[in-house]
Amino acid sequence: MKATFYQGDHKFSISEKSISDPAEGEVRIKVAYCGICGTDVHIYHGMMDKRVKVPVTIGHEMSGVIDAVGAGVSDFSVGDKVVVRPLDDRGAQASDKGYDHICQDLKFIGIDSPGAMQQYWNVPAFTLHRLRPETDLKLAALVEPLAVACHDVRLSGLKAGEVAVVLGGGPIGLLVALVARETGAKVFISEVNPRRILLARELGFSVINPAETDPVAHLREKTSGFMADVVFEVAGVQPTLDIMTELAGIRGRIVMVAIHGQPKPINLFQFFWKELQLIGARVYEREDYDQAIELIMKNELPFACLITRVAPLTSIQRVFEEIDRQPDGMKVLLDCQT
Amino acid sequence: MKATFYQGDHKFSISEKSISDPAEGEVRIKVAYCGICGTDVHIYHGMMDKRVKVPVTIGHEMSGVIDAVGAGVSDFSVGDKVVVRPLDDRGAQASDKGYDHICQDLKFIGIDSPGAMQQYWNVPAFTLHRLRPETDLKLAALVEPLAVACHDVRLSGLKAGEVAVVLGGGPIGLLVALVARETGAKVFISEVNPRRILLARELGFSVINPAETDPVAHLREKTSGFMADVVFEVAGVQPTLDIMTELAGIRGRIVMVAIHGQPKPINLFQFFWKELQLIGARVYEREDYDQAIELIMKNELPFACLITRVAPLTSIQRVFEEIDRQPDGMKVLLDCQT
Repeated sequence: MKATFYQGDHKFSISEKSISDPAEGEVRIKVAYCGICGTDVHIYHGMMDKRVKVPVTIGHEMSGVIDAVGAGVSDFSVGDKVVVRPLDDRGAQASDKGYDHICQDLKFIGIDSPGAMQQYWNVPAFTLHRLRPETDLKLAALVEPLAVACHDVRLSGLKAGEVAVVLGGGPIGLLVALVARETGAKVFISEVNPRRILLARELGFSVINPAETDPVAHLREKTSGFMADVVFEVAGVQPTLDIMTELAGIRGRIVMVAIHGQPKPINLFQFFWKELQLIGARVYEREDYDQAIELIMKNELPFACLITRVAPLTSIQRVFEEIDRQPDGMKVLLDCQT
Repeated sequence: MKATFYQGDHKFSISEKSISDPAEGEVRIKVAYCGICGTDVHIYHGMMDKRVKVPVTIGHEMSGVIDAVGAGVSDFSVGDKVVVRPLDDRGAQASDKGYDHICQDLKFIGIDSPGAMQQYWNVPAFTLHRLRPETDLKLAALVEPLAVACHDVRLSGLKAGEVAVVLGGGPIGLLVALVARETGAKVFISEVNPRRILLARELGFSVINPAETDPVAHLREKTSGFMADVVFEVAGVQPTLDIMTELAGIRGRIVMVAIHGQPKPINLFQFFWKELQLIGARVYEREDYDQAIELIMKNELPFACLITRVAPLTSIQRVFEEIDRQPDGMKVLLDCQT
């Protein structure tokens, strides 16, 4: 079988590798599709070389079909369509207070251990979620990022009729916006990239381009001064941190989806004055995967629009280079079946 | 009657003034005691000269007895012991979403309109909370700051058996610590001032002096790595902002009690990584006053220890000067009856 390996310094290699049998408690998956995540691009840029051990197969936004079942696995069978929730929480301790999805010793499969950008992938059965036989495996490769969005929206406590602002209209931002709208909220997206603005508008969202329009004044007018009940900070830049506290109305909740590596100035006075809440959100829990799978199966949301293109696994090097040159696309899937 | 007036630039005056009848919907209170709040000291320092209109009578942490009742007031009678919830929320609008205690047009009585540092005080009846006849009016002057603490603890969702860390052991910090302990939490206080450390220890709290002990390592040891379920940031300085995200355990809640006038660097990565929450808290709601009054009436908590001294209303100038010279006391009350 073919497997890809991140080698460090913007380089991937592709090797022929023997297909190994699943160990006890594991299954072997014939990988169908694997999406490329922002984190994968981050790894490719060498930003996580301290954490990943090269050469390593990365990738965690996948779909596939069970190809072999190891000893002791009774809940899954060969032929089952599945996705993997790539959290190895076997190191969880009491001090993690039951929040095993973010336990201190969490291993992220596809970063801390081999991932899905290969033709066959052996994983522990406890990471699996079964899909219905009719599920489109391309769309199913969106389950993982969609589960992130489901988690973010769930932690926000967003309710039907509320106003949500999503700061950043990339793949996660758009998925958050779609889930928020599905919840019954009125959703605004703030984005500066013209192609992303176009797509968000095509999907029916009210889009504010902060390079042209003052988002705070715009939202004040559109909401008759009520402002946002929930703000999702997905962009990860200082200007969005600066306006998030202005966009939120009284008792507004701000969900911190973006990863800010360094301490950043935050307007704490606004937190005091309006009794705002900041809610940190990371990955997902089992129920978020269940919700994401349900949404994909219903297939009523325009998920297909988010798949910019599908490329053969063997083109991995070129695909990452192109994402670097043209960062305004949405989701690129690697087809691992060819 | 005697009334005191902040005149600007660290100066108070005292004047004889005629006692006026309460207007419709108002009562006249014979003020018993009025505590000096950090905000009052802030006003005395001239920091709020843009907001207050000198000369102005300040003060809002009071207790007293109803002396006259205006037309249309049926719920209160002459002789009732009362405290005032000094929030004039008559300007609340729909866009305040029912959170009238922090409505956009909130007028704070004692800052935006005349306060209690005088012998008689006319206030709208809707601001009143009745006390039982046997209530100690000195302790009752603590209801207002105690209601702040009740509000902070309530918004934190603190539960019995949880671990709380209070950053800052001044009057509000100690009250928060007392209410948190009453809730059944294990409470740690971080404080650097030796006299405040002594008092907090006398009250039975575990006190960490961050000038001598690393609070994060200390808490890790004392909680077997569980860290804090709730952190109350009451100190308002950068070092406490820096450690609050370290002290909080997984899914910890951080309540922002302190007022930070300028944007401050915050470790957002920790919010993401541990799914922390930051909860802004300001003043109180009706139920917080009810809880504070109940606690004062039960009189099982060592509230009397928090009253550093009681001074005559007419000594206001000297009292404020002494607070400036010796800022490590707790609560000073002005006796408005003499």
